Amino acid sequence: MSGFVSFVSSGPGDPELLTVKAVKRLEAADVILFDDLSSGPILSCAREDADFIGVGKRAGRASPKQEHVSRLLVEHASTGLNVVRLKSGDAGVFGRLEEEIIALRAAGIPFEVIPGVTAASAAAAAASIPLTRRITARRLQFVTGHDVTGQLPESLNMAALADPEATTVVYMGRRTFAAMARLLIDAGLPANTPALLAEAISTPAQHLSRHTIASLSETLAESTATTPALILYGPLAEDGA
Amino acid sequence: MSGFVSFVSSGPGDPELLTVKAVKRLEAADVILFDDLSSGPILSCAREDADFIGVGKRAGRASPKQEHVSRLLVEHASTGLNVVRLKSGDAGVFGRLEEEIIALRAAGIPFEVIPGVTAASAAAAAASIPLTRRITARRLQFVTGHDVTGQLPESLNMAALADPEATTVVYMGRRTFAAMARLLIDAGLPANTPALLAEAISTPAQHLSRHTIASLSETLAESTATTPALILYGPLAEDGA
Repeated sequence: MSGFVSFVSSGPGDPELLTVKAVKRLEAADVILFDDLSSGPILSCAREDADFIGVGKRAGRASPKQEHVSRLLVEHASTGLNVVRLKSGDAGVFGRLEEEIIALRAAGIPFEVIPGVTAASAAAAAASIPLTRRITARRLQFVTGHDVTGQLPESLNMAALADPEATTVVYMGRRTFAAMARLLIDAGLPANTPALLAEAISTPAQHLSRHTIASLSETLAESTATTPALILYGPLAEDGA
Repeated sequence: MSGFVSFVSSGPGDPELLTVKAVKRLEAADVILFDDLSSGPILSCAREDADFIGVGKRAGRASPKQEHVSRLLVEHASTGLNVVRLKSGDAGVFGRLEEEIIALRAAGIPFEVIPGVTAASAAAAAASIPLTRRITARRLQFVTGHDVTGQLPESLNMAALADPEATTVVYMGRRTFAAMARLLIDAGLPANTPALLAEAISTPAQHLSRHTIASLSETLAESTATTPALILYGPLAEDGA
């Protein structure tokens, strides 16, 4: 008896940024496996008698190993239940979706993926700026600030990342941006390139601040905050364009 | 007497991929300015007595000039009405959002931006693949296949676009991908790099097909179809990862 898994993208945090389809899946779920960033008010869409299982992964904290999460997912779906695997932002963007899909395939469990609003879109909307610009920023790129060991990933494509004609969004970059900014500046990106720090996007604690890549690098190097943060840099539009 | 403009991201086409907030804004709108790609069933969320104004822009067809759209937006908001400017996908991604924001600022009209599901997220979800991969695709980039003249944009960053370790998503690339693929292969990207053609994403006409960048280039060069299409290429996961 095989259950079904919906990978549901929760969006950036505000329950109103769930899609209509995500709300329907949450309402129908027997079991919900959620991350730290997809918890809180979003879970109030689900049935009160659903089984809620936190499998939190968050920068700077010990967290269940990916294999453990995949095993939990398979175990619950194997009992014939309707399982929602809630993932923050869009499940396909830095969401470790592939590992969990592989585990479900191996176990013969059917699944679907519901896309959602990625944090970059929500951060730009909150700042009233576009992610792309007609002449000056025709390319948009997303990178992660750390690999599985928590360090800045090796073999970064600096020609891509130091391009002054692209908007770059760094996910999970709070702790490594100082190192990244040095590489960017060494690669020729001007130190005064505009940067936006977007913290706790679409939650009551949301905070947006404007910097340059050089000044943001200093700010973050001195900061001990652990709030989820996104960094945008490039030829960003002025506030409200 | 100043109205208010909500830039509402409509997502890729399926009304269930609207956010809860987008549905609320549509329900409250007096006037809705929509593009071709954000029409159809999405508009059924709005009040029947709302004023619906098509300002369609679509590849290969004559369409209102951007200045005309901005003027319409200002005119309607200036009458004190609650205006929704519906934009397909996420408004901040290749949505010409900035030009319209500038016009509203100049006219002193308040506005907000509601983020949404961009077509890349919906295409990957439909194919059950992630947009990023832990080791092989840590960078994700979005580019447009044409500039305002309908041609492949000049001065493309080929070191970024021909990177075998990134997932690239080409928006509006149907007519120019053959030329782009030649540049990619000349820049060293293997001709057999996996590609996914995602047409009419999240609509009843949705069609996904697997190619290589070389074979897709040939397919599109021979095609006269005008269905909205997205092209993904790079180290894509197998179907369903």
